[in-house]
Amino acid sequence: MQWVKLVGLGVGAAALLGLGIILGHFAIPKVADTSGPQDLDREILETVMAQLDAGRIRENLLELSKEPHLATTPRDEDLVQLLLQRWKDPVSGLDTARTVEYEVLLSLPSSEQPNLALPSVGNWEEEVTGEQEGPDVVQPYAAYAPPGTPQGLLVYANHGTEDDFKYLQDQGINLQGTIALTRYGVAGRGAKAVNGARHGVVGVLVYTDPGDINDGHSLPNETFPYSWGLPPSGVERGSYTGYFGDPVTPYLPARPSSFRLDWNSTSGFLPIPAQPIGFQHAEDLLCNLKGPQAPASWQGALSCVYHLGPGFTGGKFPEDSQVKVSVHNRLVLRNSSNVLGFIRGAVEPDRYVVYGNHRDSWVHGAVDPSSGTAVLLEVSRVLGTLLKRGTWRPRRSIVLASWGAEEFGLIGSTEFTEEFFSKLQERTVAYINVDISVFANATLRGQGTPPVQNVIFSAAKEISSPGPSGLSIYDNWIRYNNRSSPVYGLIPSMGTLGAGSDYAPFIHFLGISSMDLAYTYDQSKTSARIYPTYHTAFDTFKYVEKFLDPDFSSHQAVARMAGSVLLRLSDSLFLPLKVSDYSETLRSFLQAAQQDLGALLVQHGISLGPLETAVENFEAAATDLGQRISDLQQDSPDSLKVRMVNDQLMLLERAFLNPRAFPEERYYSHVLWAPRTSSVTTFPGLANACSKASTTDLGSAEWAEVHRQLSIVVAALEGAAATLRPVDDL
Amino acid sequence: MQWVKLVGLGVGAAALLGLGIILGHFAIPKVADTSGPQDLDREILETVMAQLDAGRIRENLLELSKEPHLATTPRDEDLVQLLLQRWKDPVSGLDTARTVEYEVLLSLPSSEQPNLALPSVGNWEEEVTGEQEGPDVVQPYAAYAPPGTPQGLLVYANHGTEDDFKYLQDQGINLQGTIALTRYGVAGRGAKAVNGARHGVVGVLVYTDPGDINDGHSLPNETFPYSWGLPPSGVERGSYTGYFGDPVTPYLPARPSSFRLDWNSTSGFLPIPAQPIGFQHAEDLLCNLKGPQAPASWQGALSCVYHLGPGFTGGKFPEDSQVKVSVHNRLVLRNSSNVLGFIRGAVEPDRYVVYGNHRDSWVHGAVDPSSGTAVLLEVSRVLGTLLKRGTWRPRRSIVLASWGAEEFGLIGSTEFTEEFFSKLQERTVAYINVDISVFANATLRGQGTPPVQNVIFSAAKEISSPGPSGLSIYDNWIRYNNRSSPVYGLIPSMGTLGAGSDYAPFIHFLGISSMDLAYTYDQSKTSARIYPTYHTAFDTFKYVEKFLDPDFSSHQAVARMAGSVLLRLSDSLFLPLKVSDYSETLRSFLQAAQQDLGALLVQHGISLGPLETAVENFEAAATDLGQRISDLQQDSPDSLKVRMVNDQLMLLERAFLNPRAFPEERYYSHVLWAPRTSSVTTFPGLANACSKASTTDLGSAEWAEVHRQLSIVVAALEGAAATLRPVDDL
Repeated sequence: MQWVKLVGLGVGAAALLGLGIILGHFAIPKVADTSGPQDLDREILETVMAQLDAGRIRENLLELSKEPHLATTPRDEDLVQLLLQRWKDPVSGLDTARTVEYEVLLSLPSSEQPNLALPSVGNWEEEVTGEQEGPDVVQPYAAYAPPGTPQGLLVYANHGTEDDFKYLQDQGINLQGTIALTRYGVAGRGAKAVNGARHGVVGVLVYTDPGDINDGHSLPNETFPYSWGLPPSGVERGSYTGYFGDPVTPYLPARPSSFRLDWNSTSGFLPIPAQPIGFQHAEDLLCNLKGPQAPASWQGALSCVYHLGPGFTGGKFPEDSQVKVSVHNRLVLRNSSNVLGFIRGAVEPDRYVVYGNHRDSWVHGAVDPSSGTAVLLEVSRVLGTLLKRGTWRPRRSIVLASWGAEEFGLIGSTEFTEEFFSKLQERTVAYINVDISVFANATLRGQGTPPVQNVIFSAAKEISSPGPSGLSIYDNWIRYNNRSSPVYGLIPSMGTLGAGSDYAPFIHFLGISSMDLAYTYDQSKTSARIYPTYHTAFDTFKYVEKFLDPDFSSHQAVARMAGSVLLRLSDSLFLPLKVSDYSETLRSFLQAAQQDLGALLVQHGISLGPLETAVENFEAAATDLGQRISDLQQDSPDSLKVRMVNDQLMLLERAFLNPRAFPEERYYSHVLWAPRTSSVTTFPGLANACSKASTTDLGSAEWAEVHRQLSIVVAALEGAAATLRPVDDL
Repeated sequence: MQWVKLVGLGVGAAALLGLGIILGHFAIPKVADTSGPQDLDREILETVMAQLDAGRIRENLLELSKEPHLATTPRDEDLVQLLLQRWKDPVSGLDTARTVEYEVLLSLPSSEQPNLALPSVGNWEEEVTGEQEGPDVVQPYAAYAPPGTPQGLLVYANHGTEDDFKYLQDQGINLQGTIALTRYGVAGRGAKAVNGARHGVVGVLVYTDPGDINDGHSLPNETFPYSWGLPPSGVERGSYTGYFGDPVTPYLPARPSSFRLDWNSTSGFLPIPAQPIGFQHAEDLLCNLKGPQAPASWQGALSCVYHLGPGFTGGKFPEDSQVKVSVHNRLVLRNSSNVLGFIRGAVEPDRYVVYGNHRDSWVHGAVDPSSGTAVLLEVSRVLGTLLKRGTWRPRRSIVLASWGAEEFGLIGSTEFTEEFFSKLQERTVAYINVDISVFANATLRGQGTPPVQNVIFSAAKEISSPGPSGLSIYDNWIRYNNRSSPVYGLIPSMGTLGAGSDYAPFIHFLGISSMDLAYTYDQSKTSARIYPTYHTAFDTFKYVEKFLDPDFSSHQAVARMAGSVLLRLSDSLFLPLKVSDYSETLRSFLQAAQQDLGALLVQHGISLGPLETAVENFEAAATDLGQRISDLQQDSPDSLKVRMVNDQLMLLERAFLNPRAFPEERYYSHVLWAPRTSSVTTFPGLANACSKASTTDLGSAEWAEVHRQLSIVVAALEGAAATLRPVDDL
C-alpha cells in the first residue's frame, strides 16, 4: 500500500477511535447516572393508587376486629404476630420487621369486684349483636381512676368544667362530700374529676348524653343495631390520666430496669374515684334529682328537665339517699409491644418517613383503631409487593409502626420516641398517623402542622372521593369544611394536632412535622361529638359495615391518601413540606395577640414589637427559601445541594421546640402547639400566661412570666427564621 | 479494493470505534467527577503550616494588649473594629464578617468609692512597668459580689470549701458575723463566699498565696518584672457568679427586648460581699491572726505560721479590731459584641467548624485572652489569603468568632449559642477554642471530649515542638503528660472540659464536640496553680515576651495546631472525629461505678447490669461504625453516603444531651460531662446522686433519684449506640 493510503487509513482509524471515545464519553451516561436523581415516580404512584383494594381492607378489618383486643391481652399479642407475619411475608412484606416491648403501667378493673354506681341498674353494656358480653369484653371503667367507694348526695355538674362547678357553688349548693354526675364533652375525661375534687366532690360519674352523641335519639329501636346511634347501655371507656405516655416513666423508655415514679404519689392520676355509665343508667339518676332546675345550656336529651340536686326528689329513690360509686381498678405492670416494619431507602436510608397507628382497642375496636390498622396493612401489602418484586424502592426509608397501649395514653408511641429520641429527631422527615380511618363517609379530615398541608392537598387533588359525586377528595373536602386563606383563597380547612392520638409525642416532644388523616361526617347532618359507639362494645365490624362504610370506599380513599402522602414524602427529590405555610399561622397568632392582648401588654410595659419583627423575619426567610428551591429545581442540582435544602425543610419544626418553655407540661415542648387554656388563639405560652396574669398586679411574678413567654416565642421564631436562611449566611 | 479488504477495513473501523467507545466510557471520568470528592489537601495543609508566622503573632499581641480592654469599654470596641477590619480585608479577609450585639448585665466597681478591706494597706496593684495604674485599669474586685460594708472578726478559712468552714466550727470557732480570709484555689471563686455564708460568715476576702502561685517566692525582687512570679500587690480579678452566661437572661439571647430576671432576687449571685486582695495585704492580716494554729495543709508561703483567728494577736492591730470589707460594685447593662467571620464551604456549606476565643480582658490581658486572639488573627490571615487568592476554599464552612464579655462568665459565647441554638446544633461539626494560647512553653495541653482526641493527635504528630528537641508536638507532649490507654498504650493525656472558657456552652448546652488548645508549663518545675499574673495588671506584653515565649515559637506551635485541626475538620472527606474513643471513657466510668458504688447500689436494689449492657452496646456500635467507614474508604463512596456517615459522627455528641437530667444546673445537659461533686470518677449524675443519697435511708427520695440518674445514663448510652448503628437498622 502507498503511504498516502496508510496515512489515510491511520487518520481514518484515529478519527474512528476518537469518535468512539467522544461517543462513549458523552453519549452513553455512566451507569450511576442512568436515571438522574431518584424522584417521585408517577407511574409507581398510580400503580399504588390502583392496587389499594377496598375488599382487602374489609378482610383486614374482619380479622382485626374479630375479637376484643385490649392492650397486652392474648388477642393483642395475636395481632402482634399477625402484623409481624404480614410485614415479614416473602411476597408482600417489608425489608425487616420486629417488635419492641416495654413494661408499662396499665389500669384494669377488677375481675372479681365490678365497678358500680348505686342506686342504679348495673354497669354492663347490654347484648345486642352477640358481641357485647363475654370474658374478653372489659367492663366499662375509667382507666387510672383510683379505687375507692365514695358515697354522697348526687349533684348534676354538666360537663364538669371549673366554671360548671363554680356555677353550682354560686347557686348555694354545697359540693362538699357530693358525687357529681357529669356528661362527656368540653372538659377532658380526667379534668371533670380534678375540677370536682377541687370543690369538695368525692366521686364522679360520667355519662354520654344522647343530645351530644345521638342527635337526641335515645330509644333502643332508634340506636344500634337499628341506626349508628349509641344504645342506652353504651358506655364510653377511656383513660383518665393527666399526661400521656407510660405514667411512671416520664422521659424514659419503660424498659424493665427503668426508674419508675412511685405509683402512689405520682402526679397525673385522679384525686378521686370516677366511673363512666350509660345514659339509661344516668337517666335514672338525673331525672330523679331535686334542687334548682339546671340552666338551659346544661339540659340534654334525656326524657326530663335536668335539675342540679343535691339529692333526689323522693320518687324512685329516697330523698336523702346517697349515691355510692364503687371503683375497684388496680394498677398493673404489663408488657406491651410495638411492631416496627422497615423499608430501606435507596438513596437516603437515613431519612425516615414514619407511618403508624395503634393496635390496641377497648373492645372489638372495629373503628378505633382497626379501621386504621386495616388501611395500614393494605398500604404495606401494596408497597411490600412492589418492593419484593424489585419494581420499587423508596428514595428515603419508610418506617411502619403498630403502637401498643394507645388507649391508656399513647403509651407505645411515646415510649418509642423516648427510646429513639436522638435518631428520630435527627432523621425523621414526617410522621403520618391514621388511627380511626373512617368516622363516617362524607369528607376527608386532615389535621397537621402547616408544612404538611401542601402534601395533603396535592394528594387529595388527585384522588377521587368515594361516592357518585365525581369530585376529587380535595374538591369534596372544600365543600364540607373550608376557610378563606389570605394566601390561597378558599381552601379546605386543616385541623391542628392536640394529643388525641399517637402523633402527640412526635409533634410535641420531638418536633417532627406530623399529620392525622381520616374520613369523617357531615357536620351539618349530625352534631355527634364523635361516632356514637366510640370506646364501647358496640364498635364492631357489623357497625362499620352497616352504618359507616358499607362498600369500604371511604377506607380505600383514606388508604390512597395515606399511600400517596407516604410516597410523596419518601420519594420526592425535594421534600414536599411547604414551610412557608407556617407564615400564615404565625401572622394570625400575631394578629390575635395584637388585637386581644396588645393593650393589656402595653399597660404592663411589654411590647409586641419584637414579636412582629420576628414574624416578619420568618416570613421573609420562608419566602426566600421557597424562591431558592424553585431556582434549584430549574437546574439539575447535585444530590448534596438537594439534601441541604431538604434538611432545612425537615428541621424547621425542630426549631420551634424549647424543652424549658413549659416545665409543668409533660412532653410539650413545641412553642406553637402546646395546650392553650386561654380563648385567645395566639401563641399558647403567651396566651396562658396572660390569662393567669390578668388578675394580678403590675410587676407580679405572673406578669414576669408573660414577658418570659413572649421572649421564648420571639427566640423560637428568630431561631426558625435563621434555620431557613441560606446556610452560608451566619 | 477487494470485498475482503473492505470487510476487513469495516471490521477494523468498527473495532476501533468500539474500542474508542469503550475507552471513552470507562477510561475517562465524567467532568463532574474529574477531581474526585474534595478531601483534605496536604499541600494546602503544609502551606498553612509554613505561613503561620511567629513574628506576626507577636505584632498582633503587641496591638491587642497595648491598652486595657475590659468588656464593653471603648478599647474593647476598638478591638471589635480591628477584628472586623482584618476579617473584611480584601487581601487576607474572609467571605463575610459582622458583629452581633447583646445587652448584658455586667458588674463593675464604683469609680468613686474604691473597694477596700480595712485595716490593711489599700487595694490597688503597684506600678512596676508603667502599666499598672491609669484610668483604664479596673481596680481588683469580685465581679457580681453584692455591695456592702460588712465588718467582723477575721478568721482564716483556707480554700473556703465546705469542709474548711466545718473544720473551723469543729475547732469551736464561732463563725457568726466573721470575715473569712480565704486563698484562691480548690473551691471556685464564688463557692468560698457561698460556703462561708452558710456558716454565718458576713464577708469574704480572697488572696493568692505565694505557695500556690509563685512556688513560694514572695519578695518584690523575686517576682515580676524580675521573674514570672506574681508581685506582692498582684490581685486576681474574676467573676464570682454561680452560673455562666448573662446572669439575667438564662436560655434566652440577651436582646434588648428579652425578658430579664429581677437583678435583686436572681439566683447565682453571692449572698455576701467578697473582695480579692494581694498577698502583701493578706500577709498583714493573716500573720497577725491569733487563735489556734492552722493545720499543716492550710499553711502557705507567707512569712509566718498561719493561725485561724478569730481576731488579732494585738500586735499590729488591736486584739478585737474588726476587719471591714467595703464593696461598692454595681450592676450595669452594657452592650457587648461578638465578631463573627465566615468562610463558605465549597461542598457542604451547611456544616460548620467553629473556632473562637474571647476578646475582652481584665486589664491588658496579654496572655488572657490576647495570646489566643493573636493566634486566631494569624490563622485567619493565612487562610484568608489563600481564600482571596482563589487557592483554597474549605469543603465545609468555617466560622471564626471573637466573643465578648467572657471574663464576666462566658457571656458572648453563651448568648450566641442561645440565639442560634437550632442551627448550630444541627450543623456544627466541632468547636475549637484557643483562649490563653501560651501559659508557658513546655508542652501542648489539649482538652476535649473523646471524639476530638484523634484529630488533635494527628495534627500534633506532624508539627514540630518549639525549641531544640526536634520532637513532634505529640512526642514532646507524651514526655510531659501521658497515660496508659487500654486501647492505644502510652499516649498523651487529654484533659476534660469544665466551664473554664467559651467551649462550655458548646459542649454542655449544645452537645457539640469541643476542644481547647494551649501550650503550658512543665508541672515538675512549678506548682503554680496557673500562670502567676493571671487576671492582674501584670499580665502584659512585656510579661509574655520576657517570661512566657520570647520568640513566640509556642504561639506559633499553637497556631499550627489550631490551623491543622481546623483544616482537618473542615476539609477531610470523612470527619476526623473518632467516636469509638468514647468507649474508653464509658468503660472507665462503668468500672468506677462498679468498683466504688456497685455494692452500695445493690443494697438499695439498683443493678448496674443495664448500664453494663448499654456500654457494651455502645462499644459494639462504635466498632462496627469504624469498620463500615474503613470499608467505605476503600470504595469511591458517593457524596451522600459520606454525608450520612459524617452525620452520625457529628451528631453522636448530641445523643448524650438530656435537658431534663439536671434541672438545677443551668445549661448543663450533657450526661457525661456535667459537674461532678463526688470523688467517684463516673457518670456525674449517678455519682452526685449517690453521694447525696449515701446518708439517707432505704427507699428515700434521694435513692429514687439515684435510680433515675442511672436510667437517664442508660437511655443516653442506648440512644447514642442507636445513632451509630447502620441507619437502615431501626
